[in-house]
Amino acid sequence: MSDTVMRWLCDLEELRRLTQRYARAIDARDIDAVAALFDPQGSVDGARGGTTVPVYLDGLRTGERVFASSMHVLGDPLIKLEQGADAGRMDTYAVVYQLRPAGAPESELVLGIRYLDDVVRLGGGWVIHHRRAVTLWTRSSAPAS
Amino acid sequence: MSDTVMRWLCDLEELRRLTQRYARAIDARDIDAVAALFDPQGSVDGARGGTTVPVYLDGLRTGERVFASSMHVLGDPLIKLEQGADAGRMDTYAVVYQLRPAGAPESELVLGIRYLDDVVRLGGGWVIHHRRAVTLWTRSSAPAS
Amino acid sequence: MSDTVMRWLCDLEELRRLTQRYARAIDARDIDAVAALFDPQGSVDGARGGTTVPVYLDGLRTGERVFASSMHVLGDPLIKLEQGADAGRMDTYAVVYQLRPAGAPESELVLGIRYLDDVVRLGGGWVIHHRRAVTLWTRSSAPAS
Repeated sequence: MSDTVMRWLCDLEELRRLTQRYARAIDARDIDAVAALFDPQGSVDGARGGTTVPVYLDGLRTGERVFASSMHVLGDPLIKLEQGADAGRMDTYAVVYQLRPAGAPESELVLGIRYLDDVVRLGGGWVIHHRRAVTLWTRSSAPAS
Repeated sequence: MSDTVMRWLCDLEELRRLTQRYARAIDARDIDAVAALFDPQGSVDGARGGTTVPVYLDGLRTGERVFASSMHVLGDPLIKLEQGADAGRMDTYAVVYQLRPAGAPESELVLGIRYLDDVVRLGGGWVIHHRRAVTLWTRSSAPAS
Repeated sequence: MSDTVMRWLCDLEELRRLTQRYARAIDARDIDAVAALFDPQGSVDGARGGTTVPVYLDGLRTGERVFASSMHVLGDPLIKLEQGADAGRMDTYAVVYQLRPAGAPESELVLGIRYLDDVVRLGGGWVIHHRRAVTLWTRSSAPAS
């Protein structure tokens, strides 16, 4: 039994890490690094409706960049994972700062987002099979002075 | 000894989970779910003074709702727990967004709160025996545009 | 092997704890507590350039206090640590609220900061050997109403 518990504790660490890796990858606009976090067979539901993971990644690669940079500040995920399981759920609160270049006159945007992720073990690691991103609030604010 | 360490690691995971379950329960206004996180013999000290857990829960159930919804973004708790112990302390930073309905003209409220929790093992799980919630700052802001 | 894994899990818990201890120490302006988190042989790169840990700590002790208090809300660190290793890296997102006394007319400051820490095992615990603090954004805001 203790091996199962230890495996479970390591899984929780990897899932927590998955959450933070997403934040770093998306903020660096490193779409290959984002791709490594998702199941290629998976899907994503966001503000613009649902799509497959490949289409979601293409959108990130080719989409117009409205903001100069971003910072995804993610809370600790609430992880639902049975011991020994190969699938689980994560519920993560995020505050996302969408930033303008220094000195830009346009207002910046801050969003409160909840990520509801179905995660699966794949090839020895964990990936997001389905993500639902729910925007709880948005707020525009004056640029930094 | 290794069983004690593993138990301790599982306890830390459950305590971290307790923190996030509180955020989800209070934001869903699911007071039964909030109740499950507190020791019925416990107490809560907040902005309106101290009270017992049952009175605190009654206040949540019957209190006037000023805001339409909320998002409690909680940092990772600083956990003080000896190996093998049945009681510990958690110190958690939170930024709480109190939100208006979309389009409402009233300003919204953001609070910086520190939760100082005495936690105890009860019936196989962990609950909050005493909570002190300290409001570090409050800020009102224009509603989302 | 299982002892190595368990040691690694305990190391991750201590590193996570190091992150939160920093926030509590700096917000309490308890510079002795900050000092306990850094390698005395280490260095810190921040907004004002690089310096040794002793000089950094002296700056904290003697520097002019512009703000009355602060709240360092730190996300879960992204930890890079091999099993059995005595050195690792942490990448932590922070939102730092720099606060005025209640009623002060001056605007407050909120900063988005990324801490990139080289951590080492020292004397049975973990300390920060090198910190690079990168300010991603700053924003001034009206004081609380």
